[in-house]
Amino acid sequence: MMPERGLRIRSLLKPDGQLELSLVEEPVPQPGPDEVVVRVQAAPINPSDLGQLFVAADLAGLRQSGTARRPVVTATVPRAIVAALAARVNRPMGAGNEGAGEVIAAGSSDAAQALLGRTVATFAGEMYAQFRCVPVAQCVPLPATITPDQGASCFVNPMTVLGIVETTRIEGHTALVHTAAASNLGQMLNRVCIEDGLGLVNVVRSDDQERLLRAQGARFVCNSTRPSFEPELIAAIEATNATVAFDAVGGGTLADRILAAMESVQSRKATGYSLYGTSTHKQLHIYGALDTSPTILRRNYGAAWSIGGWLLPQFMQKAGPDTVARMQRRVMEGLLTTFASRYTKEISLADALRIDAIAAYAQRATNGKVLINPGMDID
Amino acid sequence: MMPERGLRIRSLLKPDGQLELSLVEEPVPQPGPDEVVVRVQAAPINPSDLGQLFVAADLAGLRQSGTARRPVVTATVPRAIVAALAARVNRPMGAGNEGAGEVIAAGSSDAAQALLGRTVATFAGEMYAQFRCVPVAQCVPLPATITPDQGASCFVNPMTVLGIVETTRIEGHTALVHTAAASNLGQMLNRVCIEDGLGLVNVVRSDDQERLLRAQGARFVCNSTRPSFEPELIAAIEATNATVAFDAVGGGTLADRILAAMESVQSRKATGYSLYGTSTHKQLHIYGALDTSPTILRRNYGAAWSIGGWLLPQFMQKAGPDTVARMQRRVMEGLLTTFASRYTKEISLADALRIDAIAAYAQRATNGKVLINPGMDID
Repeated sequence: MMPERGLRIRSLLKPDGQLELSLVEEPVPQPGPDEVVVRVQAAPINPSDLGQLFVAADLAGLRQSGTARRPVVTATVPRAIVAALAARVNRPMGAGNEGAGEVIAAGSSDAAQALLGRTVATFAGEMYAQFRCVPVAQCVPLPATITPDQGASCFVNPMTVLGIVETTRIEGHTALVHTAAASNLGQMLNRVCIEDGLGLVNVVRSDDQERLLRAQGARFVCNSTRPSFEPELIAAIEATNATVAFDAVGGGTLADRILAAMESVQSRKATGYSLYGTSTHKQLHIYGALDTSPTILRRNYGAAWSIGGWLLPQFMQKAGPDTVARMQRRVMEGLLTTFASRYTKEISLADALRIDAIAAYAQRATNGKVLINPGMDID
Repeated sequence: MMPERGLRIRSLLKPDGQLELSLVEEPVPQPGPDEVVVRVQAAPINPSDLGQLFVAADLAGLRQSGTARRPVVTATVPRAIVAALAARVNRPMGAGNEGAGEVIAAGSSDAAQALLGRTVATFAGEMYAQFRCVPVAQCVPLPATITPDQGASCFVNPMTVLGIVETTRIEGHTALVHTAAASNLGQMLNRVCIEDGLGLVNVVRSDDQERLLRAQGARFVCNSTRPSFEPELIAAIEATNATVAFDAVGGGTLADRILAAMESVQSRKATGYSLYGTSTHKQLHIYGALDTSPTILRRNYGAAWSIGGWLLPQFMQKAGPDTVARMQRRVMEGLLTTFASRYTKEISLADALRIDAIAAYAQRATNGKVLINPGMDID
């Protein structure tokens, strides 16, 4: 029987900077001809979802209200950020970039009808909901052997990993540096680079993270908290000849130190001196913001360097549908192996709005990935 | 009569960090088949030449020795920089990227012989010399009506200006922001943009600089020292729709503020809110280092942005010989108008190694360009 109403998480930024997260109950929409209604059974919390949920609110100042089954969380967003986010003020927003579940209603088109009863994954956004009406074009039917838990994270991390590898090749590099390399995404990238024989320098922040990656076959792992980080990074870059880096950290001096290490390697190879450094192009793509402080660039790596933002949807648009389809096929083939995600916890929509749960999942800790199962909110 | 010996400026970095600038007297080389010997009559001091001459020595600590006709200047280069410049240590270097003068000897090839007696400009480097043997391919014969003074600066600034304009178009932008915009180069860029009908936002640091550019027809001039700089910059970027900037400053927060202003303009036009900012790409090219302090990027301009080094020779290599030839023709046609340089002073090679003269020409002041005339050193 088709349910009439369902819960979803709503994030609302008010003009005075108050941010309110709550559960709202709404009618389940009727699908249009090319749409389906998905009963969401699994939706991961990725770092990018945290930004959508909490904007840039100080999570230490969260306040809890509401009831156990209908919790409300409020926070304060700094004024400067509210001004910059004018387009978001007073516009209630959902969250949850990706997820998976069963198609319980379908529009009239053949494509929509073909999905009825199937388990699909989707990247349509606003997946922190019991029911989500999405275009057929944004659904990927999962093989019958794949559960919603196993398919829920088949977009953001796997496609980012393959996008990183594609970008490395398209730009003509033969090896890459990756920061925050022990993350769920980093471990996946390590597996893909090993499969593809692509040189990878993993930059991590602890001995535990280094051990974890080495146990998974990583050859080059550099711990940025060690005094010997710089010479070790230079040695790893020299061994791989990495000239591109993908950086999930963003802030501080890490990006700068990576570019300087690359130039150091290239200048050792160069014959003679140039005021403007070597002519080998050194590229750094920032795709995350684990450190939201400013990026500090000392610019002591010649003139042939570039640093910029990197975003999966923008990459997919540039790469074109053939490349994207090829990437998606590879993800589906490796969903239980190369592209498998591991979760530490499965929580309900209501759980996701409890301050203690937020404190845990917002840490962005290595191996701390959380899955929301809106099926747990059924009364 | 062919002179036997000539003076040139030599910059020598020693392993202990001592930098020594002196005049050396050397035999005038015999030209190879495709070479000519130029009697240098004019060679400008561009900001890029200062780096080649003084590395990163602290100019406040210069020491004078030698004689009036053979002065020697010494300085200390910080240890960290010496280590980074291993390829330069103990290698005596000339300086002076460009210059002009009469061809007084030529190799056996027809192309070389054709230049005998002509006044040529060249971008061969090491032009702070009385005589310079250069390949014919690196010479441009000047029209008979052009003096060496008028032709000496026909490469670095004019080609950089045209390279900036070409880059703007190749990357698909329709207007640009330029910093340090009242410089000799900036005034030239302003003239070219007016000729080409290309939108230009000039960023300057004083009211005098603003007046100077407005008197030359500049429509958008923003003074970064004024409290109203940010809204004025946003208004100018909105009026022009500039999405690329060429930055001669490099350090500090200026690059960041320009990118933020661009994003602010684009987000006003965008419908709806995206966590990752607008999809309009915002580009900033750093082509100078008037401020050698670190570049500070707050990264509050979404994901579609990039910042990197920009260098004329690298651009010319990418653009290819046809584009470069077209640019050079345009420079020659406008040498006394659009691409004219003005100099405040003409000095000898020996003058260029006097501490008081260095203090003046190393200021990089607007309208403070100095020309070296090695003909003045003749005993």
